[in-house]
Amino acid sequence: MKGFADRLAAAVEAKGTPLVVGLDPALAELPERLVEEAERRHGKGRRAAAAAVREFTLGILEAVADLVPAVKPQAAYFEALGAAGWEALAVTVREAHRRGLLVILDAKRGDIGATAEAYASACLSKAGLDADAVTVNPLFGWEGLAPFLAYAGEGKGAFALVRTSNPSGREVQDFGAAGGGRKFSDHLADLVSRWGAPYRGESGWSALGAVVAGTDPAEAARLRQAMPATPFLVPGYGAQGGRAADVAPCFDARGRGAVVNAARSIIFAFRRPDYRERFSPEEYAAAAREAVRAARQDLEKICNLLHNYAAGGRMNGDIEEAVER
Amino acid sequence: MKGFADRLAAAVEAKGTPLVVGLDPALAELPERLVEEAERRHGKGRRAAAAAVREFTLGILEAVADLVPAVKPQAAYFEALGAAGWEALAVTVREAHRRGLLVILDAKRGDIGATAEAYASACLSKAGLDADAVTVNPLFGWEGLAPFLAYAGEGKGAFALVRTSNPSGREVQDFGAAGGGRKFSDHLADLVSRWGAPYRGESGWSALGAVVAGTDPAEAARLRQAMPATPFLVPGYGAQGGRAADVAPCFDARGRGAVVNAARSIIFAFRRPDYRERFSPEEYAAAAREAVRAARQDLEKICNLLHNYAAGGRMNGDIEEAVER
Repeated sequence: MKGFADRLAAAVEAKGTPLVVGLDPALAELPERLVEEAERRHGKGRRAAAAAVREFTLGILEAVADLVPAVKPQAAYFEALGAAGWEALAVTVREAHRRGLLVILDAKRGDIGATAEAYASACLSKAGLDADAVTVNPLFGWEGLAPFLAYAGEGKGAFALVRTSNPSGREVQDFGAAGGGRKFSDHLADLVSRWGAPYRGESGWSALGAVVAGTDPAEAARLRQAMPATPFLVPGYGAQGGRAADVAPCFDARGRGAVVNAARSIIFAFRRPDYRERFSPEEYAAAAREAVRAARQDLEKICNLLHNYAAGGRMNGDIEEAVER
Repeated sequence: MKGFADRLAAAVEAKGTPLVVGLDPALAELPERLVEEAERRHGKGRRAAAAAVREFTLGILEAVADLVPAVKPQAAYFEALGAAGWEALAVTVREAHRRGLLVILDAKRGDIGATAEAYASACLSKAGLDADAVTVNPLFGWEGLAPFLAYAGEGKGAFALVRTSNPSGREVQDFGAAGGGRKFSDHLADLVSRWGAPYRGESGWSALGAVVAGTDPAEAARLRQAMPATPFLVPGYGAQGGRAADVAPCFDARGRGAVVNAARSIIFAFRRPDYRERFSPEEYAAAAREAVRAARQDLEKICNLLHNYAAGGRMNGDIEEAVER
């Protein structure tokens, strides 16, 4: 059977975009009427909140399913609603699959031994959430990742955190660089590349991917070199300030090997100043669809340029600078 | 109000032991009859599994509540059972509180911004699981921990991973030491000590603790020095091979500042070769109580010796070696 990276590459090819929609259904950001209606049915409380979140994410899935290869539900927002929230997460994964979407569960789990096996089962097994891949924390070394990659034979995968987009992440991830040495995140990159080598699929890409922030092009370019067969999951595009040119170095020279996540800028597009006048909160799904189209076009420029570049062409200044910086 | 560290110190004092019981209810290890009975009531499946886990953990709580200051539920085993498992976790926390136990939720969460806030809410808020503290992954830097410490004013706390007990953790945590430099885990220790400084309570201990493995005494002694006001949560004692002498350096000279977790060696004591003949699987709770008593005595030796040491006495060779190695 095809490995996770093969399935992801095929889905990106089929949909014609590396854009992934992040499902971060923060309760406070949902259209108010959705929450009010759920409260009328269920009374105030977390059951109503979970029902509203469920309706919201299903609406998003319907609106974007034909336009993107995958969605990335953020476990935290579902867990915050307790058991009903967990059930909403399970329904979200099932519905995404029914609509032909891959599911990258953003749960950032990390532990060892039987506990890591339990997390892997919760996230990846058919009896569990049955996601196609899950984000994991590499602090425990290989023993923390092996239980997740035990599902590689079923076409599942994992993305290990290597470089995050938040400013204070540098306090930790830049460790070692002060004395002119290598950064901790570069060390993680070497480990992830090595750990993932036995899990390369037909496409050449590994079932062990890396989370690499799309906010620092120079950093991303170095990490792409260090992990040539590692698919990147790139957060930070959109609401977190990353532009298409910034995420370009996460791709290989042929414009492959990365998926780019956009969450709030898509699912809460109806709140954006540039969308607010055209879409009411009730039209959140239509707004999300429009935002996906815009993000696809934005990313397409990069991919085309990278394709041209690979074919011997030259990129324009903006992209070239981003890639070569 | 008292901070988390004050409450933990008071509970350790009141119960006369730093022993914490880890609730790692791996389904395959549960007494078979418990699972069979649950399946008769609920049919085969995860609802039955969650019911069995719930009955098992409540039985453990009843057996150990008067003997230990806190329990540490491992989220993974509950999550592996889906929404019903999450509900069993919520019931476990409530029941532990009802019995006067503090709850350290072992979830090893880590993220930033609104997502980290959602995890903190899921774990620590009254509307969420309402645990007293939660384990967190420090890879994101301060921004990853701040949302959890936002609950410090409500007497809640967090334990950041600093040093784990598994062999392959060294690949990651020893980074930097090769060239004679400082280790990554020492760097984390400095950060955790600094981040936690503003959160010191009446007892002098911070609401930001550290997870420090109890399997390498020399390492633990150095980390204790680097984090003088940081409470340690010490895994690795018992089933993972740590002995009381090994965990001794996690305490300060007065025998304070650490809690020691034992999970499988307690909750699955009925499976231990030395208990199997005296306890049937149905007597798992009695076996756990007996194992807690034995572990308390084992740890008491260390605490007494540390107390004597602080009072000017000398420790015996075994402990001294462990502390000074």
